[in-house]
Amino acid sequence: MRSALERGDLKSAVGLLEALKPADQANVFDDLQPEEQDKLLPKLSPEDSADILEEMPNEEAAEVAERLQTKNLAKILDYMEPDEAADLLGDIKPGIATQAIQNMKEAEEVIPLLEHNDESAGGLMTAADVILKEDMTVNEAIKHLREESPDAEQIYYLFVVDDTGVLVGVVNLRNLVVASKDTLIGSIMERDVISVPAETDQEEAVRIVKRYDLLALPVVDEGERLLGVITYDDSLDILEDEATEDIYRLGGISNERPGDRSLKDAVKSRLPWLIVNLFMAMISGTVLSLFESTIAQMAALASFFPIVAGVSGSSGTQTLTVTVRSLATGEITKKEARASIWKSLLLGLVNGIILGGIVVLIGYVWKGNLNLGFIAGGATLINIMITSITGIVIPLLMNHLKVDPALASPILVATMADSLGYLIYLGFASAVLVFVL
Amino acid sequence: MRSALERGDLKSAVGLLEALKPADQANVFDDLQPEEQDKLLPKLSPEDSADILEEMPNEEAAEVAERLQTKNLAKILDYMEPDEAADLLGDIKPGIATQAIQNMKEAEEVIPLLEHNDESAGGLMTAADVILKEDMTVNEAIKHLREESPDAEQIYYLFVVDDTGVLVGVVNLRNLVVASKDTLIGSIMERDVISVPAETDQEEAVRIVKRYDLLALPVVDEGERLLGVITYDDSLDILEDEATEDIYRLGGISNERPGDRSLKDAVKSRLPWLIVNLFMAMISGTVLSLFESTIAQMAALASFFPIVAGVSGSSGTQTLTVTVRSLATGEITKKEARASIWKSLLLGLVNGIILGGIVVLIGYVWKGNLNLGFIAGGATLINIMITSITGIVIPLLMNHLKVDPALASPILVATMADSLGYLIYLGFASAVLVFVL
Repeated sequence: MRSALERGDLKSAVGLLEALKPADQANVFDDLQPEEQDKLLPKLSPEDSADILEEMPNEEAAEVAERLQTKNLAKILDYMEPDEAADLLGDIKPGIATQAIQNMKEAEEVIPLLEHNDESAGGLMTAADVILKEDMTVNEAIKHLREESPDAEQIYYLFVVDDTGVLVGVVNLRNLVVASKDTLIGSIMERDVISVPAETDQEEAVRIVKRYDLLALPVVDEGERLLGVITYDDSLDILEDEATEDIYRLGGISNERPGDRSLKDAVKSRLPWLIVNLFMAMISGTVLSLFESTIAQMAALASFFPIVAGVSGSSGTQTLTVTVRSLATGEITKKEARASIWKSLLLGLVNGIILGGIVVLIGYVWKGNLNLGFIAGGATLINIMITSITGIVIPLLMNHLKVDPALASPILVATMADSLGYLIYLGFASAVLVFVL
Repeated sequence: MRSALERGDLKSAVGLLEALKPADQANVFDDLQPEEQDKLLPKLSPEDSADILEEMPNEEAAEVAERLQTKNLAKILDYMEPDEAADLLGDIKPGIATQAIQNMKEAEEVIPLLEHNDESAGGLMTAADVILKEDMTVNEAIKHLREESPDAEQIYYLFVVDDTGVLVGVVNLRNLVVASKDTLIGSIMERDVISVPAETDQEEAVRIVKRYDLLALPVVDEGERLLGVITYDDSLDILEDEATEDIYRLGGISNERPGDRSLKDAVKSRLPWLIVNLFMAMISGTVLSLFESTIAQMAALASFFPIVAGVSGSSGTQTLTVTVRSLATGEITKKEARASIWKSLLLGLVNGIILGGIVVLIGYVWKGNLNLGFIAGGATLINIMITSITGIVIPLLMNHLKVDPALASPILVATMADSLGYLIYLGFASAVLVFVL
C-alpha cells in the first residue's frame, strides 16, 4: 500500500485498504503520514472513514478529524456509532465540533450523549436504536428491527419501554427468533432488568457488565427512563484501560498510554514523579545524616542498608499491590477491611521472623558479627511488620479519601519503609555502640 | 437466608437463593459453611446448581463438587456449559472426574474439550451448539436453532460448516432475523471468518476477540475444521485475570488471586520472593562494604544513598512498567524495539540531566558541599541512563527467552539500579578523596 501511495496511485491504495477489517484499516491508516492520511480519506466512503476513525486511538482520530472539511466530517460522524461520534466531538476543538454538529443529519442521537461526564455510565453509553413496546407482537418487533438502523451496534438485547419511556423489560434477540409470530413482546420479555443511573462511575458499570455476563447494560435517568446502553465491547476496552492505568500508576507513571511515542509527553508524565521521589528520598537521607557519627564509627553498618530498607520495602509493595488490585476489582469491602489488616499483620510477623532470622545468620556467616546480625535482623523484623500495616492501611485510607490508591500509595509506603528502616536499624546500632563504649 | 438456614428452614433458604441472579447466588453460596452448602445443594434444581458452580471461583467449586454424590454431580455437569464443565472436571480429583463423566448424558460434548491445554484457545473454547450448513434456508436454520440446546450460551454468531466440518462462514443472528424465510444461508453468510488454531495461546485469542469486537471466536484444527468457540464473556474474564497476574508479578507476588484469604498460601506466595530479594540486596551490600573506608572517612556520603539509588530505581521501574505492559497488550513489536530503546535512552538523558542538576543544588543548599553535590548528581545522571536501558532491555530479553517479563525483570532492574548506583557514587567519592588527600 505504501508503494501504491508513493507512486501516487490512490485508487490501488484505497482498494488495498478497503479489503481489510476495520481494526486493521485503522492500524494501517494510523501509521501513515498526515499528508497521506489527508489525501486518502476523501477517497474512502464515509462508512469506511467512520469505521477507521472509530478504531483509531482517540487523539490521533481527533487530529485527523480537525483537518477534514466540516461537511465531510459531519457526513462521517453520521455514519459513526453515536457514542463514538460523541467521544470524537468531545476531543476536537469546540468551534469545529459545533460546526460539525450543525451539519449532521443525525445530530439528535449524539447531542444527548455529549451532556454526560466522560468517566460516567452516561458518557460511555450509546443510543439504544431499537426500542420495543410491551403490546407489540413478535412479528411487529422484527419488522421494526428490519426498518430501524440496519447496522445497529447493539441489537442482541432489545429493551422494552412503556409510553413514558420507562424501562420495563428486555427481550433477548434469540427469544425473539424462536418465538411464534403473534406472541406479544410483553409475554416473552424478562421483567427483571439490571440497569444503572447515568451518573454511575464507568468502572462500576463495567463491573456489572462483567459480573452478569451482559451484552448490553441499559442506562436510565432518575425516573427509570431509558437513556441509552453500554455495550460489551466498550466494557472490554474500559476494563483494559483501567488495568493499564493501575499498572502505570503503581509504576509511577501518570499520563501515558502503551504506544505513546512522544518524548515530550514521556518527560512530562515521568519527571514530576521522579522529582517527588527525589525529595521523599531526602527524608531517608536526613535520617542517615542524623546518624553520621554512628556510621563513621562503624562503617560496616552500611552493608546492611540495602537489606534492611530493601526487603521491607518489597514486602510493603506486595501488600500494597494486593490491596490496590483488590480495591479495583471490588474484592475488598469495608466489612472485610479490618480482617484483612489483621491477616496482613500476621503475615508480616511470619515473614518478618523468617527473614529476620536469615539476616541474623547472614550477619554471622558473611560478616562474622553476630551483634550486627541481631541489630539488622531485628530492624528487618520490625520494619516488615510496619510495612505490612502501611501497605494495606495507606491505600485503604486513600480510597476512603477518594484519592486513587494506585497513584498516591506507592511512594508513601516506599518512603516510610526506607526512612523507618534506617531509623530503627541505626537507632539500635547507636544504642548498642553507647552501651559498648 | 442465614437465619432461615439456622432455623433449619431449608425451603425458605432455597426460595431466597432462587430469587437471585446466578452471579449473586454463587456469591451467597460461596460464603456459606461447607455443611450448609452440602445441605442446600441437593434441594436446588440441577440447573440452578450448575449456574452456581459455573459462577463460583474454580477452587471452591471443585471442593463443593468433590463432596457431591457422583450421580448428582453428573446431572449438574450435564446442565453446565461444556467449557465450564470441562474446567470443573479438570479441577477435581481424577477418580471422581472419571466416574462423573461415565454417568453424564452429554459427555461427548465435554470430552473433546478436556484434551486441550488449559492456557490455550482449545482449553478456553466451549462447544458450538448450533451449526448451520450453506444450503439450509433461513427457516430451516431458525427451526434448527429452536430445537438445539434451548439455552445455548453463544448463539449470536451461527457458524456454517461444509460436509467435512470445515468452517466456511458465519451468520450474525440479526441477519437471520431480518432475512426472508426462504433465503439460503450461503447467500447471507459472511465468508471471511476470523478463526484461531486450538493451540493458540489464550491471551492471543482474547486479543483477537477484543481487537475485532467479536462476540465469539471460532477455534479450528489444522484442517480448518470447527472445534468450538471462545465467547466474549470468557474473554472479559481472561483479560482481567491476565491484568491481575501482571500487576501481581510486577509487585513481587506469584500465585495469589484477589480475595484469597489463606495465610499459608500468602506466605508461600510472598516469602520466596522476599528471600530472593534479600540475597539480591546482598550484592548492593557487598558494594557498600567495598567502600567501608571511604564511608568511614566521609560519613556525610550516606545521606545521598537513598537519592542516588532510589531515584534511578524509580526511573527504571517506570521504563520497566511501560515495557511490560506494552508487551502484554501487544504494543511493542520486534521492529519497534530498537526505536523504543533509543527513545528510552534519550528520555533517561533528559530526566537524568534535570534530576542530576537538582541533586547538585541539594548538595549545595542542604549540605553546603558543592563537591558532594557534583559527585551525587553525576552518579544520579549516569545511573538513570543505565536504568533507562536496563528497564527496557531486560524485559525485552526475558520476553525473547519466553520468560514472563513481569515476573523476572523487576528484581533484576532494581538490583542493578541499587548496586551500580552505589558503585558509581562511592567510586567517584573515593577518587575525589584520593585526589584531595
